Amino acid sequence: MTTADTNKPAEPPTERTRLKRYHWLAKYDQETINAIIDAGIVCQIGYVIDSQPYVTPTNHWRIDDYVYWHGSSASRMLKEQQRGIPVCFTVTHLDGIVFSRAAFNHNINFRSVMAFGHGELCDEELKREALQVFVDRLAPGLWDYARKPTDQEWKASKVIRMKLDEVSAKVSDGLPDEEPEDLASNLWAGSIGLQLVQAPPVPDPKLRPGIDMPDFVKNFKYSR
Amino acid sequence: MTTADTNKPAEPPTERTRLKRYHWLAKYDQETINAIIDAGIVCQIGYVIDSQPYVTPTNHWRIDDYVYWHGSSASRMLKEQQRGIPVCFTVTHLDGIVFSRAAFNHNINFRSVMAFGHGELCDEELKREALQVFVDRLAPGLWDYARKPTDQEWKASKVIRMKLDEVSAKVSDGLPDEEPEDLASNLWAGSIGLQLVQAPPVPDPKLRPGIDMPDFVKNFKYSR
Repeated sequence: MTTADTNKPAEPPTERTRLKRYHWLAKYDQETINAIIDAGIVCQIGYVIDSQPYVTPTNHWRIDDYVYWHGSSASRMLKEQQRGIPVCFTVTHLDGIVFSRAAFNHNINFRSVMAFGHGELCDEELKREALQVFVDRLAPGLWDYARKPTDQEWKASKVIRMKLDEVSAKVSDGLPDEEPEDLASNLWAGSIGLQLVQAPPVPDPKLRPGIDMPDFVKNFKYSR
Repeated sequence: MTTADTNKPAEPPTERTRLKRYHWLAKYDQETINAIIDAGIVCQIGYVIDSQPYVTPTNHWRIDDYVYWHGSSASRMLKEQQRGIPVCFTVTHLDGIVFSRAAFNHNINFRSVMAFGHGELCDEELKREALQVFVDRLAPGLWDYARKPTDQEWKASKVIRMKLDEVSAKVSDGLPDEEPEDLASNLWAGSIGLQLVQAPPVPDPKLRPGIDMPDFVKNFKYSR
């Protein structure tokens, strides 16, 4: 809710990805976009079935210019998406709250990415490669450590990917953007940061005695 | 990615809100649903324009049986939504990562809500009331403290609300759900919790000297 327009961003890839509201927060460079996607493991996938919009939160990961998500082979969402219906992929991180001197100018700090495209079903080979990348991205070494999927488990999994062609990011990390007359007032303004923080690992109570915590758990860092 | 089916949940309000995948995680009681909505300030709104799905992250708040969101009076999203197009409202909280003994059974802990409905534009009186509730929900006392909106600022704001009729929640807070043969193995399993944590308040560097930090900032607790 501000009117400043300081940094002219790079051009958007398409008209649909051009930010109309708060366009001065727009980022179109690949480095910023990839960093926002990689900083999280939960995305929101928008799609349409029978004219009804659906938004499904799910795990995502990125390999080069594609984002991937997975699910049950019986999932209605994935069955529709593998037909190539239009998809809107978003990732959002809440970074803080900005208190302004004026009620109209309170804000939040955030990083978000929005991408438009079409889902494509990964074949068996790509599915297996991609799921391995996903598991090792959660924690490096996790794939080699755990019991590998059975044929039946592989059959029960499906992976969809989407090319990152039409994509834009929006980043707000500032302080309150105030009207000049508000800056001159005797009111407090500032911000409070928010961050997703990890707790110490909790072993499964059903753990058999004498099993050491693996290094990938000891060294786990969310959002590397 | 489990097959257990232990707690039979309450019935969903409509067939569209009935969880098909992992249906044993479904919750349909109002208390659980409201708590998940109220635990966050960022939602994802799904809607369709010209057959294209859009997912827009935005601030939300709840008053009784309605969820509210706001934006610029010139916003294309809000202009479409005030026409009463179908909307999918979702809130998602990531609570942790679950490491299983089997690659197929790694999981995340989360709380999410999905609601289907139609946006409705709030009239001037309801808009002003609702925005005041929103600001005071961010921090109690914030509305009285900051400079009130001018007529021009009021005109620049629009508020949409949606009735919480068709709504379901999904909660996963467990430990790994393992196959019996995996439980008997010598592999480690457990979980790592994730939580959105607040940093100390940072005053605006442009603050005039001698301005005290208000109590609502000192006492600020994200996600009360």
